[in-house]
Amino acid sequence: MTAGPGAKRRGRRPAGEDTRTALLDAARVEFTERGFDGATVRVIAERAGVDPAMVNHWFGGKDKLFLASLEIPIDPDQVIPALLNGPAEELAARLIRTFLTVWDVSGGGPLVALMRSVSSHEGAAAMFREFITRVIFGRLISALGVDQPELRTALAATQMAGLGMVRYVVRLEPLASADHDTVVAAIAPNLQRYLTGPLS
Amino acid sequence: MTAGPGAKRRGRRPAGEDTRTALLDAARVEFTERGFDGATVRVIAERAGVDPAMVNHWFGGKDKLFLASLEIPIDPDQVIPALLNGPAEELAARLIRTFLTVWDVSGGGPLVALMRSVSSHEGAAAMFREFITRVIFGRLISALGVDQPELRTALAATQMAGLGMVRYVVRLEPLASADHDTVVAAIAPNLQRYLTGPLS
Repeated sequence: MTAGPGAKRRGRRPAGEDTRTALLDAARVEFTERGFDGATVRVIAERAGVDPAMVNHWFGGKDKLFLASLEIPIDPDQVIPALLNGPAEELAARLIRTFLTVWDVSGGGPLVALMRSVSSHEGAAAMFREFITRVIFGRLISALGVDQPELRTALAATQMAGLGMVRYVVRLEPLASADHDTVVAAIAPNLQRYLTGPLS
Repeated sequence: MTAGPGAKRRGRRPAGEDTRTALLDAARVEFTERGFDGATVRVIAERAGVDPAMVNHWFGGKDKLFLASLEIPIDPDQVIPALLNGPAEELAARLIRTFLTVWDVSGGGPLVALMRSVSSHEGAAAMFREFITRVIFGRLISALGVDQPELRTALAATQMAGLGMVRYVVRLEPLASADHDTVVAAIAPNLQRYLTGPLS
């Protein structure tokens, strides 16, 4: 949520970074007000004052515009197939390694900003719900064909959100600076139970 | 962190709610700057302009003043012995039930405020680290006499912080409104592994 109160629309906007910024601002408003399903590329583009084709040009589609508006630096069209490529009983380990690789790069700064947004604005919390259920865990878990997919999605989210909080936001040792193998050995068995194990 | 920028010291302060508020304000500054160990009751009272005996009178000691300054509505002198009273292999279930009981009362509002503070101020994050390691999980886990107590403390914190995020902040169903038995059945086996199970 970088668009501060000082961000203003200009009368004339050249095709370029201004278009991208205007689309992100418009997307945050539309996703917040209408949710992921309710928001349309057409209305977002209209609100930004640009052609709808600019969404594909700058972001590659609605789901990637959504991730960019949350400042989550992943491309689900690459990440989801890569995570599903391998034994289902090792999915948790792959998921944790991907998570650590994505967020370690920036020292977790964007994740701290995301947690702050989510705990400060109901709109951001709603967007984060959509991200969890539609973009990441929901897609992974429906591909597994397991029972109780909604509960498993929420349980997996508790473990990954908690790992993010403790490693990057609260920065509690030894998890804050543990290497990836240590984190995977400690957490993957728990996450794997949420994904594919018996729940009760 | 309720003391807004509008909060001002008065020249004369009657013993009463003003004393309590002044102590909370002073405690937040001292705990943030010096940590839980470095902050002293004497210096907090001096900063608040009141007698050090007022800390015991209003809060019952430094650790309870610390919890009050974080707006965490538990008394560890009651909660910790109650949690340790029973089979160690059911500690996770008792911990989750206590957590849900404490936060469900207020609909999680203070927990949302806590998460916002922790992700907005390094001082609050440092206080939250102290809370996890000294006040709650650290005390529980050292009472268990298990291996790798620091790692177990951090792992237990991932699960409980994540449960708090998903149930109260992000409010993702079905966990947001699941009854306590359902949450315990789903999460206690995972938390129990972090507390007493084999880690690798």
